Amino acid sequence: MTLRIGVIGTGGMGQHHIKNIQSVIPGAEVTAVSDTNEEVARQVASSCAAQYIADPYELIASDNVDAVIIASWDPTHEGFCIAAIHAGKYVFCEKPLSDTPEGCIRIMEAEQKAEKRLLQVGFMRRYDKDYRELRKVIQAGRIGIPLVVHAQHRNLAPAGSAKITSDMSATNALVHEFDITRYLIGDEDTYISAQLVAPRSSRFCGEDLIDPQLVYLETRNGVRVELEIYWYCRYGYDIRCEVVGDLGTASLPSPSHTVVRCEGQQAFQIVPTWQERFHDAYVTELREWIASVQEENIIGPSAWDGYISSKVAEACRQSRLTGKIVPIELIECPEFYHNI
Amino acid sequence: MTLRIGVIGTGGMGQHHIKNIQSVIPGAEVTAVSDTNEEVARQVASSCAAQYIADPYELIASDNVDAVIIASWDPTHEGFCIAAIHAGKYVFCEKPLSDTPEGCIRIMEAEQKAEKRLLQVGFMRRYDKDYRELRKVIQAGRIGIPLVVHAQHRNLAPAGSAKITSDMSATNALVHEFDITRYLIGDEDTYISAQLVAPRSSRFCGEDLIDPQLVYLETRNGVRVELEIYWYCRYGYDIRCEVVGDLGTASLPSPSHTVVRCEGQQAFQIVPTWQERFHDAYVTELREWIASVQEENIIGPSAWDGYISSKVAEACRQSRLTGKIVPIELIECPEFYHNI
Amino acid sequence: MTLRIGVIGTGGMGQHHIKNIQSVIPGAEVTAVSDTNEEVARQVASSCAAQYIADPYELIASDNVDAVIIASWDPTHEGFCIAAIHAGKYVFCEKPLSDTPEGCIRIMEAEQKAEKRLLQVGFMRRYDKDYRELRKVIQAGRIGIPLVVHAQHRNLAPAGSAKITSDMSATNALVHEFDITRYLIGDEDTYISAQLVAPRSSRFCGEDLIDPQLVYLETRNGVRVELEIYWYCRYGYDIRCEVVGDLGTASLPSPSHTVVRCEGQQAFQIVPTWQERFHDAYVTELREWIASVQEENIIGPSAWDGYISSKVAEACRQSRLTGKIVPIELIECPEFYHNI
Amino acid sequence: MTLRIGVIGTGGMGQHHIKNIQSVIPGAEVTAVSDTNEEVARQVASSCAAQYIADPYELIASDNVDAVIIASWDPTHEGFCIAAIHAGKYVFCEKPLSDTPEGCIRIMEAEQKAEKRLLQVGFMRRYDKDYRELRKVIQAGRIGIPLVVHAQHRNLAPAGSAKITSDMSATNALVHEFDITRYLIGDEDTYISAQLVAPRSSRFCGEDLIDPQLVYLETRNGVRVELEIYWYCRYGYDIRCEVVGDLGTASLPSPSHTVVRCEGQQAFQIVPTWQERFHDAYVTELREWIASVQEENIIGPSAWDGYISSKVAEACRQSRLTGKIVPIELIECPEFYHNI
Repeated sequence: MTLRIGVIGTGGMGQHHIKNIQSVIPGAEVTAVSDTNEEVARQVASSCAAQYIADPYELIASDNVDAVIIASWDPTHEGFCIAAIHAGKYVFCEKPLSDTPEGCIRIMEAEQKAEKRLLQVGFMRRYDKDYRELRKVIQAGRIGIPLVVHAQHRNLAPAGSAKITSDMSATNALVHEFDITRYLIGDEDTYISAQLVAPRSSRFCGEDLIDPQLVYLETRNGVRVELEIYWYCRYGYDIRCEVVGDLGTASLPSPSHTVVRCEGQQAFQIVPTWQERFHDAYVTELREWIASVQEENIIGPSAWDGYISSKVAEACRQSRLTGKIVPIELIECPEFYHNI
Repeated sequence: MTLRIGVIGTGGMGQHHIKNIQSVIPGAEVTAVSDTNEEVARQVASSCAAQYIADPYELIASDNVDAVIIASWDPTHEGFCIAAIHAGKYVFCEKPLSDTPEGCIRIMEAEQKAEKRLLQVGFMRRYDKDYRELRKVIQAGRIGIPLVVHAQHRNLAPAGSAKITSDMSATNALVHEFDITRYLIGDEDTYISAQLVAPRSSRFCGEDLIDPQLVYLETRNGVRVELEIYWYCRYGYDIRCEVVGDLGTASLPSPSHTVVRCEGQQAFQIVPTWQERFHDAYVTELREWIASVQEENIIGPSAWDGYISSKVAEACRQSRLTGKIVPIELIECPEFYHNI
Repeated sequence: MTLRIGVIGTGGMGQHHIKNIQSVIPGAEVTAVSDTNEEVARQVASSCAAQYIADPYELIASDNVDAVIIASWDPTHEGFCIAAIHAGKYVFCEKPLSDTPEGCIRIMEAEQKAEKRLLQVGFMRRYDKDYRELRKVIQAGRIGIPLVVHAQHRNLAPAGSAKITSDMSATNALVHEFDITRYLIGDEDTYISAQLVAPRSSRFCGEDLIDPQLVYLETRNGVRVELEIYWYCRYGYDIRCEVVGDLGTASLPSPSHTVVRCEGQQAFQIVPTWQERFHDAYVTELREWIASVQEENIIGPSAWDGYISSKVAEACRQSRLTGKIVPIELIECPEFYHNI
Repeated sequence: MTLRIGVIGTGGMGQHHIKNIQSVIPGAEVTAVSDTNEEVARQVASSCAAQYIADPYELIASDNVDAVIIASWDPTHEGFCIAAIHAGKYVFCEKPLSDTPEGCIRIMEAEQKAEKRLLQVGFMRRYDKDYRELRKVIQAGRIGIPLVVHAQHRNLAPAGSAKITSDMSATNALVHEFDITRYLIGDEDTYISAQLVAPRSSRFCGEDLIDPQLVYLETRNGVRVELEIYWYCRYGYDIRCEVVGDLGTASLPSPSHTVVRCEGQQAFQIVPTWQERFHDAYVTELREWIASVQEENIIGPSAWDGYISSKVAEACRQSRLTGKIVPIELIECPEFYHNI
């Protein structure tokens, strides 16, 4: 049976998912879309022969929709997620799950009440072949027990891109690292403190933005995580990660591109955007989500994962304001989310 | 409209294509299969809800089949291709197009008589992202005019694999290099001579096989192509290529895998089989072929490309027997195949 | 004129220097040695046809000695350096210059009184070809203004090596990074705070040692420096460094060794010890020092450089004990040490 | 005792050696120089406090000269070598040993008559750390029995450099590969045929030069050697080599230089000249030669090695003229040269 999907939010991310469903993912179709920007939403709807539904809650409730993808404005996630859960529909929510930890808790409460895992968060890096291979190497014990993680998250933000704020460094970018690090070193490990420090800022990021930023996390098991986020690195979209264990280290490979030797140097291009770097991960993410919905057995990143990343982002914001190391106090993990 | 595909040959390659159509390629379904091994064919048919048709010619003629994939025993390709063309059906034929250049010529004659491009040959490397990027770099003029190509084709054949013969080094393995080299340096360039030399043989390839082998080609434009084929390289499936131009050189990147530092070294795994190395290329190949069939505009590797590779393979066989440099005399390229 | 050198301390480091002077550095000879271990010292003396002098102060004063190399026990450095300066002799002192910042200050006072630069500290990385090239790239403006430095210092300490203490991570190992970072980002920049954090410790470093350790430094210019020291990394001696600027980043290259493809992987060996990694740097260091002594124009790392690294090491020790970010308050740089 | 060296030929190569002896090689001094260009020779002589001797044969005979370095015009090598041998003096002769194989034979005859190894040929790659490491890996059996060698020799010849002729590709450049390949796969193996083919020529090498060129060698043991020589590669001085065995392959590492990420790519510089690439090899070569002279036990590349490379160069020239595979028929290796 073809899965009928309703998409809320037809901006960049929503369109990306819709295009993937149409072109490279069998077994699903987009049947309804909704967005506050009606014009764009109608255009997208017609491009994929879907229905335009003005009210997202109506879309969620529609008989024409088996499962929901949420790619709308961050603060709206919570309401849509809870509505979908109440409707008993599977829901895929883009990160962040909610813009506050409390929102995440309310979503978890709704899901527990439904007594069934219905929600998956869009941490697509868990579907990237490089991260999956890195995790396999770690889980196979090749590097022993993880002790330290070094990671860099660099973007090629267009000069003077007005939309990026200093808080977004943690909430929108490093949120991926907060999640994928646990995926690498063991989902059961969680964070106990966060520290954000600001180096000298780039001359090219605009006066209001602090860029780059460095974040240091500590986990219950004592793993220390060093993260760099750099929107205006100016050379490309570059994601790096090394996990240091007590038997050795394992790293993401360098990006793999044509090696050119000319004009005195040996070089390869670095891709400019996440669309190129993580294209396959987004496809695999949706494909596996759709398969798991059809098997009624969701196994991707959960609301608990979304909650943890949200808490870390909040701690980072506080650390930036106070200059202090901020403790992270999570609620106890509900039994519902054990071993998932 | 969903494209209904009939598959002739349900061995490894046929099953690979069928699985891809089912799992990752929207817009097509396998509706009929045929194979001399009825048991396997029936199993495959039931796995994809397709019809089993004993007689491949009946499959080609079936109203239930819009297009045909041929993945059967090499000597049968010619007959099935010509039958499909006569039936006016699009046909995707695994390499080699035919086991003789004459067979390729007869296929081209049938296609010209049909006055429509119906056939594509399964040179999947043209769909590999690394080769595509390499070609783009060359076409952009970064390395100037191509002068020399160095390429290695290494396999991890299981010890004592009885099936590999010395002729297969050119006909089954290097045939990919014969085609992809033209794709890289310009399809309009063709080969004028071939030389095959046999180094000291590996201790692990069995007495009947000469392995590795080296092949040297010369093109009309004077490009020299140095190829190594090595079935029993014993470390992995490894495909390398460097194109040397008069402004610089461009190479395929090293395979991209988790970098592990432990036990005194820095290392990454090399994949063992072509299934891993070219998985995405096979998917893209079929996806683009299906799209082009639906648009009735075949643009993939043509019968002319199949013919050239077949001629080179034949020249290699002669060179191995005579120890000489063997001239390659192609028929004139039919106008039908110009600019395609 | 051949430079006559007296060496105080004939342990590993002293012998290393003596061997280099004999075998690969023209223009100098070792004429006298001294060590508390008389037996070893006499052996070394006879191997290089030098005089054994029991009292190091006598060695410093000897007419047979033009310049002094100090490679003795850390706490003895200060006394020997000051004695050499008083004697008006050029002195090369292994790092650390002194085991306390106050000792470094006293040495600087002696040198200023001598009104002549007589002392060089053994920060040999400034003579390593990779660091020199990295610095040149930065100074040429290729990566813009430095903002962040990431560096790893990994050793292959023999299991259960009893001598390493948690303080030595900063004082004996990272002291190199404290110095070389300024060399890379600009000697005029100095540190204003240090923080040391302890991740989960390796199972292989012994109970008394905290290993690995992470150190975070901040400079007056706002550059943030992230350092990892890991004695028991267990895979080799591995020194890595990336400087992040606002136009790009620059890194030390990977170590360069024979690339072997076999048994399913592509790998290269990592050297086990600093002797291999920095062999050439030690030779160049002594060669350039000897040349500068002969030209009476010392330009290598100064007592001021030694003082800064000593202050940072002290701050790290405090940070480890208190868990706090420790401010670093340097004395004002004496005019004597400006522009040298 | 300091070794007193006389240098015949004070062009680029001679000056390079003289500078190394002065600055980085203890235990030797240049006491006499000779050159047909008296002005340059006198300048060089005064720079190193050596005597200028107009007649090279007088230099060879001089009591002031213990050993001779020959870096003069290729056709003069034979005469000077034989004179030095007759004088019973150790002689280091730059490659090629002679410009004809017959010249090499006459030199060997003179040396055998002297009943003592007196001569070493300047194949400095045997002293390069990368080649030495590569050889060690092969000799340790890591890649099994060598079957194929792929090597590239690329130069950054200045545009329109009038001096390079098509013959020099083999005689002056690939001569290094002829020798180093035997060093890698086993000195006891020798060549039985050579073939030279000319690809399309670069637009930048001038009309009289064929560039690049490809050379294929076969050894008695059946190893096939594929060489590329390319004077006008236009991107740097780049020497590459991969040895393919029946257990795996081993390669020279990529050059090791600062990795820069900026302007959309990751890159490192490639050195422009052999002076940078092989600087250390030249130093080690002379240092080890001088040590072996002092121990009266020459172990470097012998006249037999020089003869083999000369024969291969001659076969390449013939192959270029005839377009044929040219057999190489060596004289039997004199017992004098066994096991040296």
